[in-house]
Amino acid sequence: MEQVVLEPIGIIRSPHQEGTATPIQPIFAGGRRGRAEIDPAYAEGLSDLEGFSHIYLIYHFHQVNGWQPLVTPFLDHHQHGLFATRAPKRPNPIGLSIVRLLDIREGVLDIENVDILNGTPLLDLKPYVPDFDQFEVDSIGWLQTTSQHVNSTRSDRRFSSKDQPD
Amino acid sequence: MEQVVLEPIGIIRSPHQEGTATPIQPIFAGGRRGRAEIDPAYAEGLSDLEGFSHIYLIYHFHQVNGWQPLVTPFLDHHQHGLFATRAPKRPNPIGLSIVRLLDIREGVLDIENVDILNGTPLLDLKPYVPDFDQFEVDSIGWLQTTSQHVNSTRSDRRFSSKDQPD
Repeated sequence: MEQVVLEPIGIIRSPHQEGTATPIQPIFAGGRRGRAEIDPAYAEGLSDLEGFSHIYLIYHFHQVNGWQPLVTPFLDHHQHGLFATRAPKRPNPIGLSIVRLLDIREGVLDIENVDILNGTPLLDLKPYVPDFDQFEVDSIGWLQTTSQHVNSTRSDRRFSSKDQPD
Repeated sequence: MEQVVLEPIGIIRSPHQEGTATPIQPIFAGGRRGRAEIDPAYAEGLSDLEGFSHIYLIYHFHQVNGWQPLVTPFLDHHQHGLFATRAPKRPNPIGLSIVRLLDIREGVLDIENVDILNGTPLLDLKPYVPDFDQFEVDSIGWLQTTSQHVNSTRSDRRFSSKDQPD
């Protein structure tokens, strides 16, 4: 199949300067604020987005390099298939976060609950709509027994940057 | 910023042969079934995914070409900024669907509620986890007044293929 070539539409600014100290999910980011700075070429496409309280950010895990089929995620002590986790080292290192949208001014989105590394290239934004995005779930696999511990869990060197091979 | 180059990890098979007849969201796909066929190089990464009842599919809207900053979405008669919609013609044509996972056998995922065109290149899979993915939302912008109509809404030629310029 053909390669897919994408151009970032902007950059994410956050207080998280290192992967090792970055919260693993937006809901555990403790209200941490950040910004998504959209390239002026795309700013007109933001109109009416301000009416949504939550948005998806789809971005490039630009600091990760390589992947392995089995990983031990932050939330467990056992290995699991990579695609059964949200670990950043993936064949296509695409990140997905749902953040609260506070304000938009001149192509800059003020966002809350940011679990994303500073300087991350943004690929897409989509409105979060409960009718589309919330489902009654029967099972959450290996997370069933571990998800009560996620609140205090932070990233660590298992998914370190290019400069820190593991 | 640097380009991001991705290699599809598999292909999505569905009963939807044309964009014009494809449901606009998984929850309106009426239980339509399909498959995600994962390249054997990535099959080991699927282990333990079978424990999750719902998964995200992240894929390439391979039939769309170009984008415009303002669009009239399926669900409304007014123009909105592209990023305030889930329309497929985006600067980076990345699709996001949450589907029900029925079974996995030999690298093939049987999935339900498929709103994706047959032959779509798959870029990533992630487990759907209510603790991470469900938020109490205050506002859904322009969809507030229109979302009761989405159930019967299907795609149309506004987001047509490369062969059908609009």
